[in-house]
Parts: sequence; C-alpha cells; structure tokens
Amino acid sequence: MASCIDVIRGHVSIRRYKRVPVPEEHVALMMEAARRAPTDAALHLWSAVRVRDPGVRARIAEEIRQPHVAEAAEFFVFLADLYRLERLLEHRDHRLGCVHRALLLFAAVDAGIAAENLAIAAESLGYGTCFIGAVWNKPRLIIRLLDLPRLTLPLFGLTVGVPDESPERRPRLPTRLLFHVDRYRRPAPGDLDEAYRVMAPITRRRDYLRLLLRYAGPGGYFESRDSELPAILEEQGFTSCSGTAAGR
Amino acid sequence: MASCIDVIRGHVSIRRYKRVPVPEEHVALMMEAARRAPTDAALHLWSAVRVRDPGVRARIAEEIRQPHVAEAAEFFVFLADLYRLERLLEHRDHRLGCVHRALLLFAAVDAGIAAENLAIAAESLGYGTCFIGAVWNKPRLIIRLLDLPRLTLPLFGLTVGVPDESPERRPRLPTRLLFHVDRYRRPAPGDLDEAYRVMAPITRRRDYLRLLLRYAGPGGYFESRDSELPAILEEQGFTSCSGTAAGR
Repeated sequence: MASCIDVIRGHVSIRRYKRVPVPEEHVALMMEAARRAPTDAALHLWSAVRVRDPGVRARIAEEIRQPHVAEAAEFFVFLADLYRLERLLEHRDHRLGCVHRALLLFAAVDAGIAAENLAIAAESLGYGTCFIGAVWNKPRLIIRLLDLPRLTLPLFGLTVGVPDESPERRPRLPTRLLFHVDRYRRPAPGDLDEAYRVMAPITRRRDYLRLLLRYAGPGGYFESRDSELPAILEEQGFTSCSGTAAGR
Repeated sequence: MASCIDVIRGHVSIRRYKRVPVPEEHVALMMEAARRAPTDAALHLWSAVRVRDPGVRARIAEEIRQPHVAEAAEFFVFLADLYRLERLLEHRDHRLGCVHRALLLFAAVDAGIAAENLAIAAESLGYGTCFIGAVWNKPRLIIRLLDLPRLTLPLFGLTVGVPDESPERRPRLPTRLLFHVDRYRRPAPGDLDEAYRVMAPITRRRDYLRLLLRYAGPGGYFESRDSELPAILEEQGFTSCSGTAAGR
C-alpha cells in the first residue's frame, strides 16, 4: 500500500478516463473524506453537487470545452456555500451578520480543503482526478443547471475515474519560491529565471510565459472571469448583507 | 501503516503540543507535499511563510489569542499570492491583466489545497495539526510582521507538532447536507433540526447556534473581519489592476 505522502507526491491530473463506473462504496469513502475536512469554526462553508445526469454532464463538458467532464465516472462541482448557514440561523430566528465578503474567502479555502481530501482519497484508491477551473468559463450556466440558490457560488469542478492515460508529473515551482522563512522573500531575477526554466515543460512550446499570459495576462481567461465576478456576486446575493433568504 | 483514507478520517485538530521539534526531514516532506498540490493552470497562486522566529511566534500567539501558535513545533501562514505571478510577468516585460478579484478567489482555493496536503502529510507521519482562521483577527499585524508585499494576503495559519492531547473527533454535518445530487437540495426544516442535533457536541453548552452566532451572526467575529477586508484589499493592491509593482 502506498503511503499517504507517496499518493500526494505521485499526483498527476488525469484528463482521459475509461468509461467504467466507480463503485458506490468507493464514492462514499471519497465523500466521507471530504466531510471530515477541517472547516473554520465548524461553519462548513462549502458544499458540492455530484453531477450524475448524463445530459447535464454532456452540456457542461461541451460548453466549458472539457470533454473529461462527460467521460469521467464522477464529476463534482464544489461551491462556496453560505446559503445553508443562513438557513440554519433563520431556522432558529436569527440572521447572518454582514459577513459575506470575508466568509466567501474562507469558503473558498474550506472548499479547497474538502475537495483535496476527496481527491487524495480517490487517488489512494487508484483513481485519477482533475480539478476543473474552467467551470468559471460559464458560471451562470452552472448556476442555472445545478439550480444553485443565493449565497452559493461555483468555485471549481473535480473529475474522478479510472485513468486511461499515464502522463508525466507536471513541474512545480521550487520549494524556496513557495515557502518563505519568517519574512516574505521577494524573488530575485535569478529566481525568476529559474522558475521559467523549471516550468518550461508545462507547454509544448516550452515557455511558461505563454501559459501565464493566456490565463492571467491582459485579455487572458481570468480577465473575463474577473469582469463577470462582481455582477455574479450581486446576483447571488453576496453583496447585500441586509434582507432575508426569501425568494429562490 | 494507516491508509490515506484512515489518516483523513482520523483527523482531529490539535491545540496542545509537546515542546519538541519536528525533524527537518519531516518538515521537508510536508513542504514537498504542499508543493505537489494541484494548482489551477499551474499559476501557483499561493505561498506560505514558515515562521521560525520565537519572538514573532509569541507575538502572533498573544495577539490572536492562540497559544499553540507559539507552542507548536512548526507554524505556517498561508497566503494568497499574486505578487510572484506579477513579478514573473514583469521579468519578461509583460504585466498582469485585470484579474485580481477572480485570482484572489482561485488563490484561496489553491492555498487550501496546498495546506491540506501539508496537513495530511504531517498527520500521516503522526503529527497533529490545526488550521488557524484567527490570523484574521489581526491581519495588518501579520502583514507587517511577515513583511508581506502587495498582491499577497494572509488567509490562515497552520500549526504542526507532536500532540499533547488526544481529543475526540468533532462532529461534522451529515453527508446529505454537504453533497447534492444533480441539483442543489435546499434543506428542509427536518434537515436543519438534524444538523443542530448532530453538531450539538461542538460547544460545551451543546448548542451549535451559539457557535454560528459567535462567528457569523450580527456582531460576530466575521463582521469585523468583513468590514476590514475592503481596506486591506486596497492597501495590498488587489483593487487596482493598473500601475506596476514598483514600491514595496
């Protein structure tokens, strides 16, 4: 049996899956791993939708251009979820404070922790996984298809299934660019050169810059995600801390 | 050797530690586990400060009222980090797009994933861990003490060390309140009653409501965190997508 650390160190994202199901008892173990995740102040600021409907899966896969969303045995969409918390408070005649912005940030952390528990549990059982940031290519579609209420926000997807590929591990930045000691260490030019060298295999053209620009540069994917975010937060009720959960 | 799933299922937060160090090779394994974490588009939107200075540790522990921050062998502060990404782009004469708000959300997910890898690696080696949301009781102090540059934001702390207590596992919400199938399932009154029943042991008074109100109710901890957040985001440069990384 592989150690936990070996499972974690061996992680590669799997984007091609065999068309075979994951036994329900394994899915239950994965969901239980997520359930046991640390969560700030036991607030459980996350939830997840397990998308089983093949039609919905196919639609999402096509719209966000990630075929493995349809092909993987399992697909989860992880949410920041303040709705359940609000309902819990209202059930006892109380209300949520003006906490939405800060809780959203904590919710994203909670969701990341819970989803990684699920992914590690899956990989320790021999399955492959892939986080899907591309749900943010069509956030309103996801919100509509999954019937997400106010005070919830889709953050990312996660596919799980039997791998039909065995890609090389992808490079990561060196430890000393990820961990500082006592004070934040600003990278020197030599560090940045090293980062580009280490990360070069990440694209076919062997240039990490192309990836960074495609996502985070002017006109990159994240600019449209960023420009949509304020309106979506408003639509989902995150910008108002008054009123009630009435409606939706 | 415990399986990965057993490690994850056995998690309890440890707040009392023996005053013994963690061997450096174990810390290296934990940091490597974090480094290998999935990260959206290989952007690595996180970093962490390993706080070793006993004076800084004592100061933080006292100010945020978490004694184990000083007592644990290791203490990490995990950051949302867009600063390194900006520096990478500038190093090749490009700039970050208008992506700050969306990247901050993805950064919180990245940080949660990486930190949970570190925590699971630590627990699989027999250590105890505890996530510390209370760094948000004094975010500006943390920013100053750790010399955090613009486009970084402290999200949470993580203590690691040899346990000096063996608490019961804490309750978690039932799976069917955390996982939906195909569509978000709004909780019925019976679900909410059950949630309160299951979560009752979380406080001495056996009332989950008290905890929810203390953190998320009107006047709760998250209200002050929430009211500080916009100014801190502005100070840290997250609200401007123009300009350069000059200064700090």
